[in-house]
Amino acid sequence: MLNHQQDTIIAPATLPGTGAISILRMSGPDAIRIADAVLSLSSGTLSEAKGYTAHYASVNDSKGALLDEVIATVFRAPHSYTGEDSVEISCHASAYILQELVRVLLDAGARYAEPGEFTRRAFLNGRMDLAQAEAVADVIASTTSASHRIAMNQLRGGVSKELAALRSDLLEMSSLLELELDFSEEDVEFADRAALASLVDKVSAHVTKLTDSFRLGNAIKRGVPVTIAGAANAGKSTLLNALLGEDRALVSEVAGTTRDTIEETLNLGGILFRFIDTAGLRESDDTVEMMGIERSFRKIFEAEIVLALLDGTSTESDLLNNLREVVDAVDLSAQKLLILLNKADQWGDLDDNKNVSIINKFVSRIGLKDNILIVSAKTGEGIESLKQRLIELEEGMIPNEDSTFITNERHYEALSSAARNLKEVRTSLLSGTPADLVAEPLRAAISDLGRITGDGLTSDEILGHIFAHHCIGK
Amino acid sequence: MLNHQQDTIIAPATLPGTGAISILRMSGPDAIRIADAVLSLSSGTLSEAKGYTAHYASVNDSKGALLDEVIATVFRAPHSYTGEDSVEISCHASAYILQELVRVLLDAGARYAEPGEFTRRAFLNGRMDLAQAEAVADVIASTTSASHRIAMNQLRGGVSKELAALRSDLLEMSSLLELELDFSEEDVEFADRAALASLVDKVSAHVTKLTDSFRLGNAIKRGVPVTIAGAANAGKSTLLNALLGEDRALVSEVAGTTRDTIEETLNLGGILFRFIDTAGLRESDDTVEMMGIERSFRKIFEAEIVLALLDGTSTESDLLNNLREVVDAVDLSAQKLLILLNKADQWGDLDDNKNVSIINKFVSRIGLKDNILIVSAKTGEGIESLKQRLIELEEGMIPNEDSTFITNERHYEALSSAARNLKEVRTSLLSGTPADLVAEPLRAAISDLGRITGDGLTSDEILGHIFAHHCIGK
Repeated sequence: MLNHQQDTIIAPATLPGTGAISILRMSGPDAIRIADAVLSLSSGTLSEAKGYTAHYASVNDSKGALLDEVIATVFRAPHSYTGEDSVEISCHASAYILQELVRVLLDAGARYAEPGEFTRRAFLNGRMDLAQAEAVADVIASTTSASHRIAMNQLRGGVSKELAALRSDLLEMSSLLELELDFSEEDVEFADRAALASLVDKVSAHVTKLTDSFRLGNAIKRGVPVTIAGAANAGKSTLLNALLGEDRALVSEVAGTTRDTIEETLNLGGILFRFIDTAGLRESDDTVEMMGIERSFRKIFEAEIVLALLDGTSTESDLLNNLREVVDAVDLSAQKLLILLNKADQWGDLDDNKNVSIINKFVSRIGLKDNILIVSAKTGEGIESLKQRLIELEEGMIPNEDSTFITNERHYEALSSAARNLKEVRTSLLSGTPADLVAEPLRAAISDLGRITGDGLTSDEILGHIFAHHCIGK
Repeated sequence: MLNHQQDTIIAPATLPGTGAISILRMSGPDAIRIADAVLSLSSGTLSEAKGYTAHYASVNDSKGALLDEVIATVFRAPHSYTGEDSVEISCHASAYILQELVRVLLDAGARYAEPGEFTRRAFLNGRMDLAQAEAVADVIASTTSASHRIAMNQLRGGVSKELAALRSDLLEMSSLLELELDFSEEDVEFADRAALASLVDKVSAHVTKLTDSFRLGNAIKRGVPVTIAGAANAGKSTLLNALLGEDRALVSEVAGTTRDTIEETLNLGGILFRFIDTAGLRESDDTVEMMGIERSFRKIFEAEIVLALLDGTSTESDLLNNLREVVDAVDLSAQKLLILLNKADQWGDLDDNKNVSIINKFVSRIGLKDNILIVSAKTGEGIESLKQRLIELEEGMIPNEDSTFITNERHYEALSSAARNLKEVRTSLLSGTPADLVAEPLRAAISDLGRITGDGLTSDEILGHIFAHHCIGK
């Protein structure tokens, strides 16, 4: 593992030109010395200052002219974000000042930080584990109460705590098996195979619970996927626009104009929904359009909620064919379906519209109820009811403060691998396999769980991959 | 004057989503109490804390769930930006966290700040005068070394100090005249008229120096205005693009396509230049185009530097006519002129081009020398030389750290008014006018100078106008 921690790094923690104040962060063994070389305090130096104290200071540019008057706050190791000596300099939010301030600090011996390097150092210095470090970016990106809560729980070590408990169970089991291996020539069994199998079951169940939480956790983080499906020209793009309140998608009178899928997120009642507009579900000779339709079926499959959008002015047989096509693509045991009868503005008096009763008959036959909405995407009629309905469908998903969700693909993959390894452990245990063959997948499962929090060796490559997604100054 | 200072105000000082950290500012009599109501420190309270200390704390949202872990820095009156008790809260740069943090602080009794209200309070509490308060926005907006230096000088009171000295001279003079007025029945003269006139001359000369600095000060702040003038189709838009290095203006082969003026700023050698492309200078029947040409002449008048762009491939008579047209519009005593012979790529060997010598003859006749540049806006030939030449022309304008420049239109108008009033004072003094008639314009001049720094009564309307241009959180 590379060790850059001898360097003192700097980076702006805010962008200039976007407010009144800019913050420049500096961390590393020479942070306080470098700050003292550059800043003039009214009395004393930062080197003499206690941690958690703020100091008014002036700073000159490289030519010796006054650059700005700033507030410098000192943090002393290990009581800082990174665990190192750190100084945060608060200056006027001017692009020029920030650029010159960076220049004089570089001249004084600091180095410009890599993306996420402050958080990476916090990890390397034991201030947080990997799962917590990854949560920093999620906390900042959160836009809803639900996603914020999950990210904060992870940042505070909620995920890590659960994994540590599971890992500790497995480690204990592993040490028993290792003991057997040491005495392998004597053919003793220190660990009761049935008791071990039951422990594996317990851990496996917990791991499965966590992997299962990924679908919902990911939905909360990225938005609950809602696919708008239906025949060409049923008004899917218009519906998306009505939901978003602006002209987002291309709308035209020609059937089949939405060839690519369009995604837009919308915060409804504190829940983020990710609406996916799709190509119309109909036969096509156009290759490009065919690809779009293929994608549409895939999007229906990935959705948490499917909105079947039907043209309420079409004939009875068209209506039923179109609905059947969507229903066939939906997994009703795992996905939620809402049927929208669109173009209410065109079919006149509601009682005249036999289509409602036709659909009612069809859906009650397949065991669906109370999920038909009359809308007009064009006039906005019924759109508010639709939004309310979507909130009701997902309200249960707003997590308790204590519940742990997996939202990170890296974690999901590691947990899935742990689950596979544990399955192998269990099979081996119950078939009387020798301890060394049981120990191997067990060690792999332990390593899988450790990979999430960074327990055990974490390669520089993995760290690089993780922190490259952070922004500079974080 | 309205007094909002009983309120405690809050606002973000940075925008969320643009970095690692967001700062929320709070200022007013209850700032520390409100912060204590919302933040949980690991030990103690902010109310017990000294000024200039930072504190790690957690904060819950309105429903009692953990919102974030923050650093709160306490500033105690009068040792803060506003001069009031203040708390700066540094949280994760998440839009959600910032929004919720603002909500709980509002619930606890704070009020959302108006634009510029922190700086307005700094003024009302005597932490800075009006000219300094106005400089805050200029410091943040500065993008070059020169404009930054001028704004910093103003922020540190450079302008105010000069004005205070002038005002003090005039106040002394005024008190002598007022004394005469008290004894007016006795017809005494406490003040020697000739000595007073000489003092007025001294002050007037200084005021004129300051008003004169506005042209340059404003040029440094907004960019040195460089007008590109010349016949239609001489390549003005292409030249602008070549200077800026991108396709900014509409370029076409049809003469007269640039109907409106286009302005772009460019930082060359630490000096901001503001390039102004104009409509071609030629007769036109098109009303819209005629308006554009009128604007072109106005832009030539406003310019610090005029670039006369000539089509080097045109006939001798066209060339001279076009050049004469530009030269006639330029005030050679106040403006700088560079002649650019364009389309060097088309006329072949330089020696073959008689145009250079024709122009040389013309310009030496009108006393200009050494200001012809051969360029090709199309290929970029000569563009670097042009940039170097522009820097040389303006290098002298980079101000010393000590020199004072007026960059604010409000200040310029007040100084111009003071100059007019002082002229009236001088005339009255020398024509033996009674003291009361001299005293009146003198009082007006004193009030003019006081208006700039906010000495004397400043109406809420004027303050409102000044601080409305600041952003929230400043």
